[in-house]
Amino acid sequence: MRQSQLFTRTVKELPKDETSYNAQALIRAGFIDKVAAGVYSYLPLGKRVLDKICRLIRKEMDEIGGQEILMSALIPKENMEASGRWAAFDVLFRLNGGDNGDNKEYALGATHEEIVSPLAKKFIYSYKDLPFGVYQIQTKFRNEKRAKAGLLRGREFLMKDLYSFHTDQADLDAYYEKATAAYKKIYQRLGLGDITYLTYAAGGTFSKYSHEFQTVTPAGEDSIYICEKCSNKVAVNKEIIAEQNACPLCGNKKLTEKKAIEVGNIFKLGTKFSAPFHISYKDSAGQENTPVMGCYGMGPSRIMGAIVEIHHDDKGIIWPESIAPFKIHLLSLNENEAATRIYVELSLAGFEVLYDDRELSAGEKFADADLIGCPYRLVVSKKTLSADSVEIKRRSAAAGSLVKIKDLASKLK
Amino acid sequence: MRQSQLFTRTVKELPKDETSYNAQALIRAGFIDKVAAGVYSYLPLGKRVLDKICRLIRKEMDEIGGQEILMSALIPKENMEASGRWAAFDVLFRLNGGDNGDNKEYALGATHEEIVSPLAKKFIYSYKDLPFGVYQIQTKFRNEKRAKAGLLRGREFLMKDLYSFHTDQADLDAYYEKATAAYKKIYQRLGLGDITYLTYAAGGTFSKYSHEFQTVTPAGEDSIYICEKCSNKVAVNKEIIAEQNACPLCGNKKLTEKKAIEVGNIFKLGTKFSAPFHISYKDSAGQENTPVMGCYGMGPSRIMGAIVEIHHDDKGIIWPESIAPFKIHLLSLNENEAATRIYVELSLAGFEVLYDDRELSAGEKFADADLIGCPYRLVVSKKTLSADSVEIKRRSAAAGSLVKIKDLASKLK
Repeated sequence: MRQSQLFTRTVKELPKDETSYNAQALIRAGFIDKVAAGVYSYLPLGKRVLDKICRLIRKEMDEIGGQEILMSALIPKENMEASGRWAAFDVLFRLNGGDNGDNKEYALGATHEEIVSPLAKKFIYSYKDLPFGVYQIQTKFRNEKRAKAGLLRGREFLMKDLYSFHTDQADLDAYYEKATAAYKKIYQRLGLGDITYLTYAAGGTFSKYSHEFQTVTPAGEDSIYICEKCSNKVAVNKEIIAEQNACPLCGNKKLTEKKAIEVGNIFKLGTKFSAPFHISYKDSAGQENTPVMGCYGMGPSRIMGAIVEIHHDDKGIIWPESIAPFKIHLLSLNENEAATRIYVELSLAGFEVLYDDRELSAGEKFADADLIGCPYRLVVSKKTLSADSVEIKRRSAAAGSLVKIKDLASKLK
Repeated sequence: MRQSQLFTRTVKELPKDETSYNAQALIRAGFIDKVAAGVYSYLPLGKRVLDKICRLIRKEMDEIGGQEILMSALIPKENMEASGRWAAFDVLFRLNGGDNGDNKEYALGATHEEIVSPLAKKFIYSYKDLPFGVYQIQTKFRNEKRAKAGLLRGREFLMKDLYSFHTDQADLDAYYEKATAAYKKIYQRLGLGDITYLTYAAGGTFSKYSHEFQTVTPAGEDSIYICEKCSNKVAVNKEIIAEQNACPLCGNKKLTEKKAIEVGNIFKLGTKFSAPFHISYKDSAGQENTPVMGCYGMGPSRIMGAIVEIHHDDKGIIWPESIAPFKIHLLSLNENEAATRIYVELSLAGFEVLYDDRELSAGEKFADADLIGCPYRLVVSKKTLSADSVEIKRRSAAAGSLVKIKDLASKLK
């Protein structure tokens, strides 16, 4: 895409009350716009990143047999009352349709157990209908008291929520392991694998623990306690440390406290929702039973914020290649004729290129490229052209090098 | 996909208050689920159709230079007051965050002029920043008094809304023509081209007319008045007929009344929103000016409902190939071994196949295939296999014919 045509440009002014790094950088670089505290719009660059994160998540959810659906954001009050959460869920946005409609009251979906459970009930009769998993990627609403962490804690945010249904605990347990593995794969692909910990958290009536995926960064709002003895990145959260002060896997009591961002959480719900919504199935002996459920959440917009908190330097964002808005940022320094040829060639070869064809100084273009953070910066100038070359520099590297124009495409592959 | 694994099955029972054909058929065939009047969830088959409609729309929006964004669904009250629509917009859902948040009041997005205008203001300084168009595909909310037409009039529904910004009326007019052509292309691809009319509707302060795209069907809630003299599918709506009772293009007074569904509408907004939101640009002489805007709406979920109203018979839905959930519905009549081989081969060849591998009678499978409405039905039975063949039948045709298994892929291309 030609940057001269891009809606949005980098900006210097920030909303006064924006204190989080992720929101500041994403607003300055033109990825998002602030509408209200915890409420953002995604601009073309931000939408591209969000789409890539969603695509990556979707692939792994499909891989473990998840079927994509889209549930309503409006949840009737009676559904929330059936689970007892209409009054109890403190961050719920509640609204009344008023006499224009039919005076119906709704919650705005903050999570969807109260929609997916009555839905699943309609299609579960026999043990043969189980197990299955359905998921959606959808805008969620939570009226957070404090919404000052940019994309890390939004009042309106994107969420992938998967729900699974099983005949019994053993089947749920097995699926829970599969989902855990899928989550780990996603964080790996997002460039967060090495710093993301499977963190033991409070369970509920039906399971001893639930699990959070916590990504370590000083910008995190949570504290986690890492077991350095366990080789596979395990930690416990604050609730658990207060109770047992030891690693649940190996009993190690020397845990290391670190700040972290919760980038996912998974929960064995047991019959917490299947019971009040009266879901039942006939087992092979013809007996009626209540299925058990699991739920698996992951927030693409929060992940976007977390990645910005983690992958940046003092000049701007450094996107992992898997979710960068464009792989290549091509800068023309007063050489638009040659640069346009390269832009067209790379685009035809299938590369995603943001092409800075604007009439700006080299300094402004370099600053923008660093702020926006595409993985590869290509510079076309009189000097590089005199050597039939383009300067190529990784966003994360200090210096670049010249590459012959004819070798560019193969070099970038 | 194996139908035995598909979440949802066809159902016989319907919500008692569901009177529209589109919702009845889509619920019975397992495409959608009713949550409340005008509020639906999209199940795997329905989500696939919706995604295909969106992809088709997105392509044409990109083609005319639209840049995709995602605006917030929560619209602060002050934004709606700036345009005067907080009180005036009758179908607005309004909510108060309450003292859990900061007592902030919001409207749920029913349309997004009040978000896109202050957003655009941040990036418009000079005539060089114009024109541009941004669009989103997003869940919208309207508290409709009557929500009895299934997907045709939802309280929660999907909407593509494009907004364009221009230096002057002539530039807006030219873009409006481009958008009109893009809309016509979309309806053509959706299989609605021949029955969709560019319908003159009331304009506003800034333009004599706006335009609706109206698709003719007895199920429509609107009446349009078609000019049979004009060769390019032109009509006027009820407001206009009351005023001038003639075709605005040729003056023809013999107009034919037909029922129709509004499947899109486009509007020259002029400075209706750019003025109250104080958007301005410097022209080439350095003078401050107010840009003019256009808006262009199209509802993918309503289109899904409209297509079901139009393309069906007494056995079920007949999807146009461009948006069918699967191109092929492969039925095994007790021949799962051979059918599975064909399923795998067709899938590997890139075809989208719904494979009915369930243990059900031939009659039940035929009925389901007709109800779900994939364009091609393939039947594998002892009889077809004895001729090394599969029976292939178009959903819209009365009878099928045998095709050799080895010729199947090339036949289906």
